[in-house]
Amino acid sequence: MTARKLDCAWPVPSDIDIAQSVDAQPITSIAEAAGILLSELNPYGSTRAKVKLSVLKRLESCPNGRYIVVTGMSPTPLGEGKSTTTIGLAQALGAHLHRPCFACIRQPSQGPTFGIKGGAAGGGYSQVIPMEDFNLHGTGDIHAITAANNLLAAALDTRIFHEQTQDTAALYRRLTDGLRNFTPIMQRRLDKLDIQKTDPKELTEEERARFARLDVDPNTISWRRVSDVNDRLLRDIEIGKGKAEKGISRRTGFDISVASEVMAILALVNDLTDMRQRLGEIQVAKSKTGESVTAEDVGCAGAMAVLMKDAVEPTLMQTLEGTPVLVHAGPFGNIAHGNSSIIADRISLKLAGADGFVLTEAGFGADMGCEKFFNIKCRTSGLKPDAAVLVATVRALKFHGGVEPEASAKENADALRAGMSNLIRHIQNIRKFGVPVVVALNQFNTDTEAELALVKELAMQEGGAEDVVVTSHWSKGGAGAVNLAQALIRVTEMKPSNFQLMYPNEASLKEKIETICREIYGAAGVEYLNDTEEKLADFEKMGYGAFPVCMAKTQYSFSHNPELRGAPTGFIVPIRDVRVNCGARFVFPLLGDISTMPGLPTRPAYYGIDIDCETGKVVGLS
Amino acid sequence: MTARKLDCAWPVPSDIDIAQSVDAQPITSIAEAAGILLSELNPYGSTRAKVKLSVLKRLESCPNGRYIVVTGMSPTPLGEGKSTTTIGLAQALGAHLHRPCFACIRQPSQGPTFGIKGGAAGGGYSQVIPMEDFNLHGTGDIHAITAANNLLAAALDTRIFHEQTQDTAALYRRLTDGLRNFTPIMQRRLDKLDIQKTDPKELTEEERARFARLDVDPNTISWRRVSDVNDRLLRDIEIGKGKAEKGISRRTGFDISVASEVMAILALVNDLTDMRQRLGEIQVAKSKTGESVTAEDVGCAGAMAVLMKDAVEPTLMQTLEGTPVLVHAGPFGNIAHGNSSIIADRISLKLAGADGFVLTEAGFGADMGCEKFFNIKCRTSGLKPDAAVLVATVRALKFHGGVEPEASAKENADALRAGMSNLIRHIQNIRKFGVPVVVALNQFNTDTEAELALVKELAMQEGGAEDVVVTSHWSKGGAGAVNLAQALIRVTEMKPSNFQLMYPNEASLKEKIETICREIYGAAGVEYLNDTEEKLADFEKMGYGAFPVCMAKTQYSFSHNPELRGAPTGFIVPIRDVRVNCGARFVFPLLGDISTMPGLPTRPAYYGIDIDCETGKVVGLS
Repeated sequence: MTARKLDCAWPVPSDIDIAQSVDAQPITSIAEAAGILLSELNPYGSTRAKVKLSVLKRLESCPNGRYIVVTGMSPTPLGEGKSTTTIGLAQALGAHLHRPCFACIRQPSQGPTFGIKGGAAGGGYSQVIPMEDFNLHGTGDIHAITAANNLLAAALDTRIFHEQTQDTAALYRRLTDGLRNFTPIMQRRLDKLDIQKTDPKELTEEERARFARLDVDPNTISWRRVSDVNDRLLRDIEIGKGKAEKGISRRTGFDISVASEVMAILALVNDLTDMRQRLGEIQVAKSKTGESVTAEDVGCAGAMAVLMKDAVEPTLMQTLEGTPVLVHAGPFGNIAHGNSSIIADRISLKLAGADGFVLTEAGFGADMGCEKFFNIKCRTSGLKPDAAVLVATVRALKFHGGVEPEASAKENADALRAGMSNLIRHIQNIRKFGVPVVVALNQFNTDTEAELALVKELAMQEGGAEDVVVTSHWSKGGAGAVNLAQALIRVTEMKPSNFQLMYPNEASLKEKIETICREIYGAAGVEYLNDTEEKLADFEKMGYGAFPVCMAKTQYSFSHNPELRGAPTGFIVPIRDVRVNCGARFVFPLLGDISTMPGLPTRPAYYGIDIDCETGKVVGLS
Repeated sequence: MTARKLDCAWPVPSDIDIAQSVDAQPITSIAEAAGILLSELNPYGSTRAKVKLSVLKRLESCPNGRYIVVTGMSPTPLGEGKSTTTIGLAQALGAHLHRPCFACIRQPSQGPTFGIKGGAAGGGYSQVIPMEDFNLHGTGDIHAITAANNLLAAALDTRIFHEQTQDTAALYRRLTDGLRNFTPIMQRRLDKLDIQKTDPKELTEEERARFARLDVDPNTISWRRVSDVNDRLLRDIEIGKGKAEKGISRRTGFDISVASEVMAILALVNDLTDMRQRLGEIQVAKSKTGESVTAEDVGCAGAMAVLMKDAVEPTLMQTLEGTPVLVHAGPFGNIAHGNSSIIADRISLKLAGADGFVLTEAGFGADMGCEKFFNIKCRTSGLKPDAAVLVATVRALKFHGGVEPEASAKENADALRAGMSNLIRHIQNIRKFGVPVVVALNQFNTDTEAELALVKELAMQEGGAEDVVVTSHWSKGGAGAVNLAQALIRVTEMKPSNFQLMYPNEASLKEKIETICREIYGAAGVEYLNDTEEKLADFEKMGYGAFPVCMAKTQYSFSHNPELRGAPTGFIVPIRDVRVNCGARFVFPLLGDISTMPGLPTRPAYYGIDIDCETGKVVGLS
């Protein structure tokens, strides 16, 4: 047993004070209790460890645990505590009810840690520890993604430079100089070009040109560089302005690292082979004749996989109460699917076994993160969720009933009733996938009994939730989520899931978009702006028609307009642009302006952050 | 004992094949044998571990081992095997002669790994293993440097943006909103401004303006962003071209991460407190009134130290024969000082003890790396080297006698004799510091007995080397460097070092520059071009006059001109520019164009690199 008893103070101290008041247990003890062999573990310090994928092979024939997605209603800008609920519920199931239980969560970007939002390790007495290590470099996965992403960018731009400054003979000679046979990486490109030769001397002049010239159309380059820093000045830049670059300059920009397609791929792969394949399929541009140019064509997909070889393993950490947590991947919630990795879920499900639970968090509101969990993540993994925990707060419900968060402490049954439309639609949406819903109502001091009762009544009677449970894990740790844990156990025992995807692979891209807009968002229809219909047709022609769609939309409303609170109807969803991630294998329609590089506020979090040089401890992280 | 017997094949297989043919020993065994307590170790996987700085405290009163710098003659573009000699010699001392012995080497940049040069783990049967982990992310130190460097860049540019788009009242309000007292980070800036107040409400309007406005002159910004990828298109860019940036665009660029001042700082600090202090002292720009603007002023030096809190610990790895290696820091050899960290050397010296040896490598030729080792690194640490191992090859000697490497297999006594001038001057230079020299002559198959004898005779009689030893550790591992090890033991026992710095702190910056040019390079004089004299005078006025100088020069010649081989004299060294690193605390004169961002060749190394998805092994890394 690795459970630890918490001694909860009131008022609740700061997150970092709570986190640092508890000595993390040796990660080897957490692993052992979780059924992971020491030979399957790569420790990073004493409190984190990579888990090798070989554990999947060893447990291949074991039954899976119950697969629970933790999601939320449409949030206020303050957030409603999904991560905190995931961790608190894991503490309740593991440390209090003694069920094998794993929380699977995303690795946070360092951008928000030093910017506005602060860390993402949960909060109060429901946290992953050590929270500094969780919120800072982790075990380096995001750095590996940055390195792989930017290697591809440099390789592409330098290739264009070399193609423009050398004639084909020189280019071919330098590419193959001293090679008796093409390298395996080169052979992959030759296979694509249908050139069945292994000796560089054998190619005809026409074949040499086709092999050596990617002939990229610079206007089609979609691959951007990334940095895990909130660096707004890098959003839109012009590169190659030095004399040595001979005028090969162009406009491009940086995204935050977690917005990289490489991150989305990491989250969606089933194993190393799958990752290597998908990295090669990343489309970075088109050639002047309209053909797809991929990372494989550029020649660096193997190196990218090498850079990602450790990142493909999830990282084991622990909650304040000693429950195992797998941290792995953290793709954006709008231009990507906002869910932690399939690999971490698969490993946890095997380790949890028939009696156990895996809690996996889906980012943003359920119309975004949970829809994508079902239609993208579960479609890719083939896993079937057993239940959903839907997190709500009276504050957010009133917000959707028209009351700003500042005023939500005041009892207001009308606003609450009006705002329930939001929660009810989320419940109904999840039930459309055949998945039973338990609502977790994160309690605030100011919530009244009457308010809580009203939420429960409406969520169950009008929404069809299996249960609504009031929780206080932020202030009480796992003890504050035992009721929720018991409800979840009961529901998974009594109410089997009947999971089904919302659309088949074979549906057209437009049908997929329209299904989500109608069934999940409550829209009256879809409007294709600009050249989006042509682009979708082109995607189907290029062979991407079977991909799922990943909507890039605000999380603050069911609609594309963050101002439309509650459960709006009758609106028409504008599709402003559509793009494709060929390696992550989804098409993403953009419904509005989506920022992929946050800025820093006038007083960023770093004004409070420092290191205590005597103790080596981090101070001021939140 | 952790020594391992090697079974050396002939012809010598590829580096990665040799490296992967040996199972690394558990790093805990290596640590134990090296005298490191398990509680002082933070393992990263089973073959690497961070060593905590607390080991220094524990061994405070122990005697130091013998401190040996491994350096080289002016190299050919192919390199003459300094790293390989460092590792081979460590294997000889440790595994064959059973002396406590540590090799201290630099962490390589990932840029060259995927570009031209390949890895830096040594070569043949003298390597650090696992070479993949060594050459890829290491334990994340360079990623931490990238993160810290780029956080500062983003913080600076965003601060300029906020200052330009808000009036002082709004700026001050946002900076202090909700604060009853200034944060400690803010207090540091107030101290600098000599404002002795703690409550934001108490500042006068004039004080508010001084506090809130860094008033950066954009033309003086010297801080650039970094990436550990060879990305030539980023050398010169224009940032802030998006509409949201409201026209705050400017020219800047990216350097390779190892060229960051943060890397130089990491290599030069004595402990965490020292690092925190120096990060704050980094000067990023000047204000419009000519005052220094530092990382501390920008407010993110604490966060940078937090990002670097693990990087400050060196990483323990092992040689093929089980000798301990500390890998730590890897600053550029020209615009920085090109030496691994002081912290790693200090830890190793204590662990080695009176009987033991610490081999620390100085980058580039001895006129660059070793001069800086003495005048910058030893000046900062206060450590005194006992001897220098100077690496030479017949190939490089002939090169300096006018023969290209391709033709160097042919016996050529005249060219060899002419080229000896280079080696002899290096030996004499090192002796000027009072340090005895042992020459390690890396043997090639084509070297003749007569050639080797000639080198020995001239190096000892004309140069004053204590010994010249022919080595074959590349093909034979430690066994091939036992003679060298024995010579080194003999010299350190018989010939005590009489180490002295070449110039005092109090000398003027111009005196320092001229001393190095005359005494080390053999120049007839120095010519200050452009506004370099004014700049040096300004540096002295700003308080940087006591810093050592760090020459940014080619490594291929004693002079500033890479074409001048051998031991040129009579030349005048042009000082084209001078800059200062206030955190690393050195002034660096630029003698020519120094590239701080390498490019990728037409066929970069990644065309051969991939992962074997069955075994998870890396293939094709060199």
